[in-house]
Amino acid sequence: MIGHLDQVAVGTEFESRRSLYDAGVHRALQAGIVGRAAEGAESIVLSGGYPDDEDFGEFVIYTGSGGRDPNTGRQVADQHFVKQNKALVTSHLRGLPVRVIRGGRHNEFAPHSGFRYDGTYRVGRYWREEGRDGFQICRFRLEALAPDELPDRITSSKVVTRSAVTVQRIVRDTAMSRRVKGWHGYCCQVCGITLECIGGLYAEGAHIRPLGKPHNGPDTEDNLLCLCPNHHVLFDAGGFTIDEAYLIDGIDGIDGKLRTIPRHQLNQKHLEYHRNLWRSE
Amino acid sequence: MIGHLDQVAVGTEFESRRSLYDAGVHRALQAGIVGRAAEGAESIVLSGGYPDDEDFGEFVIYTGSGGRDPNTGRQVADQHFVKQNKALVTSHLRGLPVRVIRGGRHNEFAPHSGFRYDGTYRVGRYWREEGRDGFQICRFRLEALAPDELPDRITSSKVVTRSAVTVQRIVRDTAMSRRVKGWHGYCCQVCGITLECIGGLYAEGAHIRPLGKPHNGPDTEDNLLCLCPNHHVLFDAGGFTIDEAYLIDGIDGIDGKLRTIPRHQLNQKHLEYHRNLWRSE
Repeated sequence: MIGHLDQVAVGTEFESRRSLYDAGVHRALQAGIVGRAAEGAESIVLSGGYPDDEDFGEFVIYTGSGGRDPNTGRQVADQHFVKQNKALVTSHLRGLPVRVIRGGRHNEFAPHSGFRYDGTYRVGRYWREEGRDGFQICRFRLEALAPDELPDRITSSKVVTRSAVTVQRIVRDTAMSRRVKGWHGYCCQVCGITLECIGGLYAEGAHIRPLGKPHNGPDTEDNLLCLCPNHHVLFDAGGFTIDEAYLIDGIDGIDGKLRTIPRHQLNQKHLEYHRNLWRSE
Repeated sequence: MIGHLDQVAVGTEFESRRSLYDAGVHRALQAGIVGRAAEGAESIVLSGGYPDDEDFGEFVIYTGSGGRDPNTGRQVADQHFVKQNKALVTSHLRGLPVRVIRGGRHNEFAPHSGFRYDGTYRVGRYWREEGRDGFQICRFRLEALAPDELPDRITSSKVVTRSAVTVQRIVRDTAMSRRVKGWHGYCCQVCGITLECIGGLYAEGAHIRPLGKPHNGPDTEDNLLCLCPNHHVLFDAGGFTIDEAYLIDGIDGIDGKLRTIPRHQLNQKHLEYHRNLWRSE
């Protein structure tokens, strides 16, 4: 239930939390976040109930759950990166999409009444800060994954700014790569490092024969490596290749062989394809 | 002259290579790539002259320069990652935007006549492969930085597909961060590693107090660290913080102090802001 649901188009409106629930878009009647710490968040509802939330359409500064007095709505204790908040951290660390639903009328992006499914967002940064009531709150920056497909009500109010910030690197991820990373316990197959972040471990799935045109590599486990970001950068940019016997060619100071496990077999043809991208000049 | 030019809107059409040149959009009358190995590429022209090029609108598989017979247009020697080709590698490694110009009529995205400025693209992957004439050619995958702002002729033919591929990480970059990385010789200020890719070195500029809402950190040298991707991930996700004396708090096995150089002073207030994002729970 993670990600976009094929049967529900972006922009679909719903009368109530009950109808959202029945459609499987947001599977809770009260909670703002649906998800589990171990699996990631499925969906969030933005309905203006949290005074600390800030909605910018294409991105949202979202407040976690916990520590609120149910009667007054005021924060009476610190929030922590546990339960649903940890689910959003897991979504960040694994690169999982989160469904975003906006509820009625509270700002210029919200529908006039009821609720609207606004597509999937990625969880960018997360952190804690002091909220309006003086307690620590968990905060998440969510960014639309397909900003050009957002409902008109959002895109029409968007201010297009051409910023001096450029994109240096985009790491893409697939369900298959998350499975392979799990098998390796998020340890890099080149150096054995695991990155320990607040809330969980981080690694990247590196496709040996790249996905997409023109390489058209398959998203299969035998075409994937579990790597730390450093070795992912190097692998994609020809900093090393891997030979038929899994010996690593090109990095000094690394134990010469790829770390492999029996259940994860690599396809020799894909390794050869990668070597051919970087034939010595 | 790198990046979008304020005075030339995306979609502007030009009669000739001469008028492109005079506007500063593509500062060469014949070459397909303008740029220098040390500084990155300024712009490329896609005009259908290279049979190996493949244009998908939002992204392009582009062939490098060199090794062609000027009379027949056939490839007669291997291409290498040098000169203009290396400029495109530099653009990738530094995350620099490249202006893309399409020339007349050769495909469904091109203008009916003359040339059109289509905004900036990032250089995604690069590699070498055997071209149609049997020689090694340099290849680059260029991706539109603002796909929703492309001219109508491109977006109207676009097939919207919602793929199972998700975005796990986006690394953003600024001119200031490129300067800071240069000062440190692309060595990580935490571990001292430099990533050596084919064509150049790779490091990331990490803003201490994050850019953008809601943090609104400044893009100044005293708010930037030069880090390897691994330590950038950890720094952004609370894996470590840096104290007043530049001691690193939170990573085992690292020499306890940030590597600093006299010309690059950090702002203590920004370090404190970062520590406050990750106050122990």
